Amino acid sequence: MNEQGVTGPQIVGSVADLRAVVAGYRRAGETLALVPTMGALHAGHIALVKAAQARAGRVAVSIFVNPTQFAPTEDFGRYPRTFEDDVAKLKEAGCDLVWAPDAAEMYPPGFATSMALTGPALGLETDFRPHFFSGVAIVVSKLFLQTGADFALFGEKDYQQLRVVTQMAADLNIPTEVVPCETVREADGLALSSRNRYLSPEERATAPVIHRALTEAAIRIRAGAAPDAAMAHASLTVAEAGLRVDYLEARNALTLAQLAAPGEPIRLLAAAWLGNTRLIDNIPV
Amino acid sequence: MNEQGVTGPQIVGSVADLRAVVAGYRRAGETLALVPTMGALHAGHIALVKAAQARAGRVAVSIFVNPTQFAPTEDFGRYPRTFEDDVAKLKEAGCDLVWAPDAAEMYPPGFATSMALTGPALGLETDFRPHFFSGVAIVVSKLFLQTGADFALFGEKDYQQLRVVTQMAADLNIPTEVVPCETVREADGLALSSRNRYLSPEERATAPVIHRALTEAAIRIRAGAAPDAAMAHASLTVAEAGLRVDYLEARNALTLAQLAAPGEPIRLLAAAWLGNTRLIDNIPV
Repeated sequence: MNEQGVTGPQIVGSVADLRAVVAGYRRAGETLALVPTMGALHAGHIALVKAAQARAGRVAVSIFVNPTQFAPTEDFGRYPRTFEDDVAKLKEAGCDLVWAPDAAEMYPPGFATSMALTGPALGLETDFRPHFFSGVAIVVSKLFLQTGADFALFGEKDYQQLRVVTQMAADLNIPTEVVPCETVREADGLALSSRNRYLSPEERATAPVIHRALTEAAIRIRAGAAPDAAMAHASLTVAEAGLRVDYLEARNALTLAQLAAPGEPIRLLAAAWLGNTRLIDNIPV
Repeated sequence: MNEQGVTGPQIVGSVADLRAVVAGYRRAGETLALVPTMGALHAGHIALVKAAQARAGRVAVSIFVNPTQFAPTEDFGRYPRTFEDDVAKLKEAGCDLVWAPDAAEMYPPGFATSMALTGPALGLETDFRPHFFSGVAIVVSKLFLQTGADFALFGEKDYQQLRVVTQMAADLNIPTEVVPCETVREADGLALSSRNRYLSPEERATAPVIHRALTEAAIRIRAGAAPDAAMAHASLTVAEAGLRVDYLEARNALTLAQLAAPGEPIRLLAAAWLGNTRLIDNIPV
């Protein structure tokens, strides 16, 4: 690990440079953990870096706002880009390596491969962002194979993404272990997200209603309520607060399939619009 | 390398066993080359094994008849399976490792990932076998990542497959170098293929017409004929011999795009049915 707060992380922009740095780690017998990000780092990302440091001798953070996971109507153009601030936070956190390719390094001319998933990718986000997991699967498979990381840490805040990435890596036999990390929240329950900075003060005050509604639904379900009824109640709570609900669903926590059998592990997942900002969240039951 | 012809190759059927064997090679500082096959080995495959031995300290041959690259109407069921004979040939050739998973090891329950390519996958085989390269891309990416091979050797006989696999590995940043090897032919020009054994004696006598027509077309093109005209002539030759032509095309040798500019490298590619057997071949100009 570099001398924390002194030299700062090494920053590389080409696959060749990245592989040369990682080869050096390997020669020294060190393991590598990757934290894939789109930048605009917050305390949730830093928690992933800390979890990565507990797993491996070296920690790389990728910063790449991946165009293929945004639809033309989405916020790719206005997605926050705060590279210098991100690097300062990663220096503070003692991160070793920042992998920051540009789009041409990631998708050179002639790029011809796309990926699609069924299973955990069915429904939920896919109903509203049909190309999202295709874009995520390609860029994450590339990040895993570019870095050759032993571990990759993902926040549970993007829970369906976590399950999709885990399935994809297993399906392709990518030898990178996907490690989930608990969602980091504000004191009032709002899940940390780079998109929270889009919220007006009034919206920010309203936003915790999603987590509150999910928590109440989990309590009802644990007390014996039917998951569908509990989630309908949660939907009402969120809608009454002025949000437009994309989904509020109870799913199998591993497969993300519709609930089918009593006793299966349950995850409650939500996506809703607050003004022009789309927020997602989820909790276990 | 094992003592050639004495112990025979090590045979493994699970990813865990495969990785344990390869980890042993790595600890000994050895490189690994992979020859992916569907079994039914012939001299073309053995030439790939020899080329692999010239590249790397250890050579693995995978034997897996991949169901996802066959359409329901195709010959998956009757595709030749000659495992014991294959292993005997690989022992003779001094192959170190046979990777022979079953379908459940390759595609466990819940498998959810598919892949698609544009670029070199457009047209030619795809016009007649629309799901073929999807199936090839998935299984080949898995074989590369299961073995962690430094090199993978592919015959030019399946030229479009070679270009598709090369593109896919580059696109996903899989650190396995795809190495092309020249097509091995019978004395009369017929490209070796596991499917040649389907041919009746009469069909076998007719089959070299494909290579002969391609060779004549290449001569015409080198002498200044328009590629389209030369290929139309080749089509006529093949059809007059009683074959049903799927395609006979001149394409850019690297991108497999339609010819567009004078002086670009040209590859001539053919697919035609002889009775119930589909034969493919190709040559450079």
